Amino acid sequence: MSSVTKGADAPLQREIERFGAQVFKAAGSKTGIKELPLLARQMMSFAMEDPVFRSQLFRLVDVFPTLRTDEEILSHMKEYFEGAQDGGRFAKIAAVGTRYATSSKLSRGITLSLTRKNLEGVAQHFIAGTSPKEISKVLTRYRVEGILGTVDVLGEKTLTEPEAAAYATRVEELAAELEKAASGWESTKLDFDTKGEFPKSSISVKSSALSAHYHPLSASVGIREVVNRFETVLKSFGGDSLIVFLDMEDYETKPLTWEVFSTLVRDPRFMDYHLGLVVQVYLRESLIDLNRFVSLSQERVKMGGTPLWVRVVKGAYFDSELVKAEAEGYQTPTFVHKVDSDYNFERAVDLLLGSIEYIRPTFGSHNVRSISYLHAKASELNVPSSDYEVQMLYGMADDLAKAVAGLGKRVRMYIPMGELIPGMSYLVRRLLENTANEGFLRQGFASRGSYKALLKAPKPTSDYYRPSSSEHQLALDQPYQHLGTLEFHRPHVSAEFGRALQAISSRSKPYFPLTVPYVGGREIDRGAKEVSINPAHPGDVVSEVINATSELVDEAVSAAMAALSDWSRTPIERRAGYLMEAARWMHDRRKEIAALEVLEAGKPWKEADADVVEAIDFCNYYAHEMVRLGKGVGLLSPKGEHNDMFYRPKGVAAVIGPWNFPLAIPTGMTVAALVAGNTVVLKPAEQTPATAKVLVDAFRAVGLPDGVLNFLPGPGEEVGAHLVRHKDVAVVAFTGSRSVGLEIIETASKWQKGQVHIKKVIAELGGKDAIIVDSDADLDQVVPGVIYSAFGFSGQKCSACSRLIVLRSSAEQVISRVIGAMDTLLVGDPQRPETDMGPLIDYASQQRLKYYSDMAQSQGEVATAKLAIPDEGYYVLPSVALELPKESPVLTEEIFGPLLAVEIAEDLEEAVWLANSTDYALTAGLFSRSPQNIEFIKNELLAGNIYINRHITGAVPGRHPFGGFKMSGIGSKSGGPDYLFQFLDPYVISENTVRQGFTPDIVN
Amino acid sequence: MSSVTKGADAPLQREIERFGAQVFKAAGSKTGIKELPLLARQMMSFAMEDPVFRSQLFRLVDVFPTLRTDEEILSHMKEYFEGAQDGGRFAKIAAVGTRYATSSKLSRGITLSLTRKNLEGVAQHFIAGTSPKEISKVLTRYRVEGILGTVDVLGEKTLTEPEAAAYATRVEELAAELEKAASGWESTKLDFDTKGEFPKSSISVKSSALSAHYHPLSASVGIREVVNRFETVLKSFGGDSLIVFLDMEDYETKPLTWEVFSTLVRDPRFMDYHLGLVVQVYLRESLIDLNRFVSLSQERVKMGGTPLWVRVVKGAYFDSELVKAEAEGYQTPTFVHKVDSDYNFERAVDLLLGSIEYIRPTFGSHNVRSISYLHAKASELNVPSSDYEVQMLYGMADDLAKAVAGLGKRVRMYIPMGELIPGMSYLVRRLLENTANEGFLRQGFASRGSYKALLKAPKPTSDYYRPSSSEHQLALDQPYQHLGTLEFHRPHVSAEFGRALQAISSRSKPYFPLTVPYVGGREIDRGAKEVSINPAHPGDVVSEVINATSELVDEAVSAAMAALSDWSRTPIERRAGYLMEAARWMHDRRKEIAALEVLEAGKPWKEADADVVEAIDFCNYYAHEMVRLGKGVGLLSPKGEHNDMFYRPKGVAAVIGPWNFPLAIPTGMTVAALVAGNTVVLKPAEQTPATAKVLVDAFRAVGLPDGVLNFLPGPGEEVGAHLVRHKDVAVVAFTGSRSVGLEIIETASKWQKGQVHIKKVIAELGGKDAIIVDSDADLDQVVPGVIYSAFGFSGQKCSACSRLIVLRSSAEQVISRVIGAMDTLLVGDPQRPETDMGPLIDYASQQRLKYYSDMAQSQGEVATAKLAIPDEGYYVLPSVALELPKESPVLTEEIFGPLLAVEIAEDLEEAVWLANSTDYALTAGLFSRSPQNIEFIKNELLAGNIYINRHITGAVPGRHPFGGFKMSGIGSKSGGPDYLFQFLDPYVISENTVRQGFTPDIVN
Repeated sequence: MSSVTKGADAPLQREIERFGAQVFKAAGSKTGIKELPLLARQMMSFAMEDPVFRSQLFRLVDVFPTLRTDEEILSHMKEYFEGAQDGGRFAKIAAVGTRYATSSKLSRGITLSLTRKNLEGVAQHFIAGTSPKEISKVLTRYRVEGILGTVDVLGEKTLTEPEAAAYATRVEELAAELEKAASGWESTKLDFDTKGEFPKSSISVKSSALSAHYHPLSASVGIREVVNRFETVLKSFGGDSLIVFLDMEDYETKPLTWEVFSTLVRDPRFMDYHLGLVVQVYLRESLIDLNRFVSLSQERVKMGGTPLWVRVVKGAYFDSELVKAEAEGYQTPTFVHKVDSDYNFERAVDLLLGSIEYIRPTFGSHNVRSISYLHAKASELNVPSSDYEVQMLYGMADDLAKAVAGLGKRVRMYIPMGELIPGMSYLVRRLLENTANEGFLRQGFASRGSYKALLKAPKPTSDYYRPSSSEHQLALDQPYQHLGTLEFHRPHVSAEFGRALQAISSRSKPYFPLTVPYVGGREIDRGAKEVSINPAHPGDVVSEVINATSELVDEAVSAAMAALSDWSRTPIERRAGYLMEAARWMHDRRKEIAALEVLEAGKPWKEADADVVEAIDFCNYYAHEMVRLGKGVGLLSPKGEHNDMFYRPKGVAAVIGPWNFPLAIPTGMTVAALVAGNTVVLKPAEQTPATAKVLVDAFRAVGLPDGVLNFLPGPGEEVGAHLVRHKDVAVVAFTGSRSVGLEIIETASKWQKGQVHIKKVIAELGGKDAIIVDSDADLDQVVPGVIYSAFGFSGQKCSACSRLIVLRSSAEQVISRVIGAMDTLLVGDPQRPETDMGPLIDYASQQRLKYYSDMAQSQGEVATAKLAIPDEGYYVLPSVALELPKESPVLTEEIFGPLLAVEIAEDLEEAVWLANSTDYALTAGLFSRSPQNIEFIKNELLAGNIYINRHITGAVPGRHPFGGFKMSGIGSKSGGPDYLFQFLDPYVISENTVRQGFTPDIVN
Repeated sequence: MSSVTKGADAPLQREIERFGAQVFKAAGSKTGIKELPLLARQMMSFAMEDPVFRSQLFRLVDVFPTLRTDEEILSHMKEYFEGAQDGGRFAKIAAVGTRYATSSKLSRGITLSLTRKNLEGVAQHFIAGTSPKEISKVLTRYRVEGILGTVDVLGEKTLTEPEAAAYATRVEELAAELEKAASGWESTKLDFDTKGEFPKSSISVKSSALSAHYHPLSASVGIREVVNRFETVLKSFGGDSLIVFLDMEDYETKPLTWEVFSTLVRDPRFMDYHLGLVVQVYLRESLIDLNRFVSLSQERVKMGGTPLWVRVVKGAYFDSELVKAEAEGYQTPTFVHKVDSDYNFERAVDLLLGSIEYIRPTFGSHNVRSISYLHAKASELNVPSSDYEVQMLYGMADDLAKAVAGLGKRVRMYIPMGELIPGMSYLVRRLLENTANEGFLRQGFASRGSYKALLKAPKPTSDYYRPSSSEHQLALDQPYQHLGTLEFHRPHVSAEFGRALQAISSRSKPYFPLTVPYVGGREIDRGAKEVSINPAHPGDVVSEVINATSELVDEAVSAAMAALSDWSRTPIERRAGYLMEAARWMHDRRKEIAALEVLEAGKPWKEADADVVEAIDFCNYYAHEMVRLGKGVGLLSPKGEHNDMFYRPKGVAAVIGPWNFPLAIPTGMTVAALVAGNTVVLKPAEQTPATAKVLVDAFRAVGLPDGVLNFLPGPGEEVGAHLVRHKDVAVVAFTGSRSVGLEIIETASKWQKGQVHIKKVIAELGGKDAIIVDSDADLDQVVPGVIYSAFGFSGQKCSACSRLIVLRSSAEQVISRVIGAMDTLLVGDPQRPETDMGPLIDYASQQRLKYYSDMAQSQGEVATAKLAIPDEGYYVLPSVALELPKESPVLTEEIFGPLLAVEIAEDLEEAVWLANSTDYALTAGLFSRSPQNIEFIKNELLAGNIYINRHITGAVPGRHPFGGFKMSGIGSKSGGPDYLFQFLDPYVISENTVRQGFTPDIVN
């Protein structure tokens, strides 16, 4: 890589400035948004001035294609712009005076048709056509002007098998048409480089569109499907007919795309094909990828194949990469400063031009500096202009493209073909680029920066050189933050996880012979034994424990009482310190713990990992929260008096945990109690004692004093009931079923002789959670959101979606895509990485699901996934129940499994009414792009957690404090700022500071 | 009054400057603290530099006389100074290196004796002597230097009858001694003015020291006692022997002192006596008082009496007036800027010199400007120097006094006589004055300001002209603040209150024939009748109501359910608005409502008023709180997601209130429920339906929609129980007895068919509250604090002190003063203003108290107040139980009446252990001046409300969120920031804002 030192690079910079000035001059000032139709141009220019307007405008563009009627368009426009500062502007520009429009039917009609025409006009500016025929005409036209093309088929998100197949077909049709068109074009010098002639035409294909399984953990399935479809496509034309670029998409799928590409280019059948890959230089690891690419091409050339093509781009998924990384707690894979991408682009130029003999490089950019650098560097290295290519986007900067071509460079346009709906997200990305503060088109053309300044070398920030690190700060002096889930898209992470699983299953059985109960620091090793099994292989015993007895409950509570005095007086920071240390202990063993959950709870990899992450988050969050509460709450204090509110522990807490989040939920309840200064007796679920025991191990490892945390596996009817009844238990924290919860509440409310407190019960019970799909919802969001909410961990979450409520107007479309996506779910042993759905937890669950499924069948219709399921294990197939009568128990009772009931509502009000028509109020969801409808449900939908435009499970402590009301529970939200109050008694200190004759706080 | 215009006043100002310069010159620079012994001077000068050091130093001075052993002195010094920035300084000055001192027994002894000597030296500088003999010597010495004197007898706070008598005796002894001394002095011109010769000597007497009842509401008793004692004192010497000044004390007792003075000066027996009053010009109303004084003197002169004396001072209770006003929510009676007092002093000079013919004015000041103004104004008005007098404080500015006397003015020193303990508060006030930023001595002498600047005319601030207003801002857009209690010390307030009482008792009986129950906006007028009676006159029926039935409970809950939908959707600001309006409605009728409580609950005036104030405060506080919560709680939100937590109402709330705070407590629970969006069914206590009904009246008056608040008087066993059991009741808020509370908790926890929520119970139950008295406590604070806490409203508060825990070392002294103070309590009909203790609420209470009193008698000893009580009414006498066995039920069970049990502990640890040895944890108190002991009990004392150095009842919303734990209740504190949570269900909205290809909140 070259470094930018002034002396050495002076001639290079001079050449950049010379060439750049020529480009600017030739392109004129009309490049970029200036090429848009007048009104659209005006709109863009306002968007640049006002970020709020820009956002609202893009929201409108985003939702526009799904709006079916004029009324819908009108109401969305009103909602997005009415009241906004620039609403008037937009109205003027789009010829839509919303007030005016609503006042008269006639003018409203005119207004709307103008708006529609206007937005469609903008779309047409960026999307060249809807059919291969139209597109080939565009290519021909460009060719006349000395410009080449590569065609991209826009598509909706591929969520079902038929969608993947349809996309492949459209690509084949396009290829055929382009082959035909190219045969009519004469060869010119544009079609040659020093390595020879190459195909006259080109397509760009998105791998993700060719499979519904194109995800990191189901990589093996997804890659196989994509390679298969690619082979078919490639075989449909000759190797010299088309250059085929594999577009690069989000970072998560990069390893998959590399795998697809490597497979294809090494396939002897395709040695004469012109195949290209895209590398995004906004990725921190892109230079490594480019080196790898050069090697791959070198290898292929040596094997007698054609040199590989590569397109270097800066990258178009910046927003979503950032959001995803922050949401999941991943390392951000991209540079965060635009200038670093610009700088890295030039390093990519250096690298590729230096390896020119093995490759055919192309460079996608509208940045005149980047293009000029390419030119100057090539000159310096004596690489002829024929041997590299500049690519630009259709509709973005036509005059710029012509100018660069006119200066003797090979230029190729990237030309999208497609319908309005799938095109809109493409369109929004283009509009964003045009209006971004940091974008070159805005700086270079819209804002008329000075040429010289625009041609200056990009100077990397310090972040460019920052070594990547995945260390999470699990420390009290750092603010709380969500721990990242495992980055399974990084191949070594998946591999390690596989090894952790392997390590357990290679042990002798029971894998975990546990020396529990654990009482007052003592391990109990005598008594009746009990086991937990692997629900995917019921014959496999995962762990073996001793069941606790009533006598042991008494002992454990005594131990907890004895430990209370010291523990409650342990400084808060120290108590919080134990939580942080336990969190770090679990963090160091996260893969091993998650692997245990895969075996004991039947959780797929991601779900198992998420449970461990949540357990760590709970430790981290509550530790921070208690430190905050420890500072006390300020109160009003008149002069001469100091008033403060503090909190003390309640005493001994009984924690009774469930099996579905076998580590996270017991951890949350336990560590909240502990950090608040209470001591704990923890009873785990009978199905998952080994996983819950991890928590005990963690706290033993970090030296928690004996008796502070006691652990009693055993049957709920004996151990749980006796614990709840015990006079010295001050708090009961329970997560589980409604019936057990109500029993606990009733039992705990009976005062027992010698009891000197009123028991506090925190109960998280069931849910019957609905997702409502509004008519304007984005189905690309809805379908994966619903599928994951309903079928993730086989629906065995109290937050799982068990009811889908759709509006009649979009019902058919929604239901068919949901069922199609359900059909792509991979059901099987959760030990396999690709498994979307494992078995249910036990036989009783399997029977319960069968019971409700039969009921649904008899009362309505059931669509069940067309899949094979393993013979062994408690599997049931995911299914969707339709046409149920309103009073069906399938619609009102908690089923706790992968059976999704669909209801149809006439309008949103009815949808909300249906959603609220159960005894529960836990989670609920809405997919909508109407601000007014979102506001409406915020006030009307009855649920403890309302999720908008996303899945309804997977609450993260601190972000989504979790818990419901009605029969879904009592107590405030876990992972929220009110939660610890439940383990604490507030007390106020009021100190009169007045002394005889003076008041220290009055200074006079 | 003259105004300060430059032109007209130029000669005056010139004379001020001329005379002032002479004073400064003659006084030299040694005036003020420069007259102190070296070490003390140094100490003072550090105090001026460092306010923290100053505070701690004064705290030490304050506590010093009560410290019995060297160990105690040492530990206090360490606690006050160790770690403080200036600890080292203090150590050096007082020759106390605390670290050094603790390291060696010998040096510690030296250190301590030096410290003691040093502090005593400072005290002796300001206090002239301990016996009349010593004092008369001081006076003789001054007389030689041409300076007169008036002697003040320092005393502890008079809390018992013997203390008042002893003080009178000491004054008499002093008078006799002074009379004797004066007879040995030759008359000089100092003893004459143009009106003739006057007594050679003088005393200054504090009226409050002559009675334990010298308080506004017991004014009639207190004034009678003081006048009687004064008469005896006056009659002990001849009218021409002594000038007697009545000192003015705190603002509250000013009307009493005026009354005493007016009575004495109009008494034909004392027409030839020289009597004087003090007027504090820091009081806003002081010029009015001075006019009144002039009229009084004029009247007396016309009747042939001697002209009256007056001493104008600026005022020495600034801190405590400010603190009291803020604590009680009174108007501040003083100016708040020193300059306004200075300005007002000159207006007083103008007024008095203008009326010189009828009066003998004296002026207390060390301010050279003030003194020079007096001189110049007198010159201008041709008032000879013999006709007015300048007074100064002994030890403050001797050189200044001599200088002024040397310039031909009559100067009189104010000379305190007394022991160290009562002297310390006097001492602290003097030290404060010497070190105050705004004080003249500091500015004029210590800091060496320029003469000219110091002699400038004081320029009043705008506050000087502010019209006084008692309007409380009961408005949502103002921050919440405690409503002031009635200023009974203002005579018209007491008079109005008396009239309000009169108005009720002149009605025919029942005073309040109520048309309740009130259900769904409908008044129920048929059914079984029930009455409430006046516990002071059980034959008087206060109100008559219809008892509700189970059927009516069902109707009321249905009405509340029906009203819920609209009410819960009413915007929060509007709901809060109803509360504010209801608060204003009650505020407008506060005296009438409180008068009703006097009759129905037997509350003394102040207690009744406080209950109304608290009700209004609850409306105001919860309204503000809900507006705050309505804004939602911010949560962590990663990019692309907005997370917020909001709160919704739970549904129908059942509120079951007690009789002891018959308006405030039902109001608190009800309005919290209402403002949170719940609808309410309120069941009042059977004893006080009319008072609780006021709340309903208030909300009806402000238009609360029908059904939102329903009111069901009736027996708890039927109405309360049925309400708690009702399936549609979501919240039960109860305040009352432990047994009923536990029953409610158990009943509410049983799920009822059709119930779609888990009931929330908020229960405020009993207490067995202790006050601990540390060995260094200030008994002047302890005794009134304990008496009020134990016997206020006859101990019928759950927060009342029922156990007094004293350390053996100070036990005798504490117990005897407490019993002595108990003996001064006025027990009688609460309709009389002076009543401290009225009857108990009912016959059952009277019997219960008898039961426990008999038990105490048989198990230990009981001291009962030596008082007569009315024959009629449920009265019991206040009493103190001693020597009880540890396990006595008198020490552990809630008695709810005026029986205070005393326990003796060996040390503070044992005291805390005793305090914690009950099932309850409601309130507790500590009196201590040891920071370390205060810190210790903050962590160890188990109580929901811990009060330090004050009474333990009378929590104010927002300042003292109230409520306990253990068997004292469950739920968070009323009047605190967590309270509303209990009527709300939290819910979280998580909105994914990412759109295809863009994220509106990422600006790029």
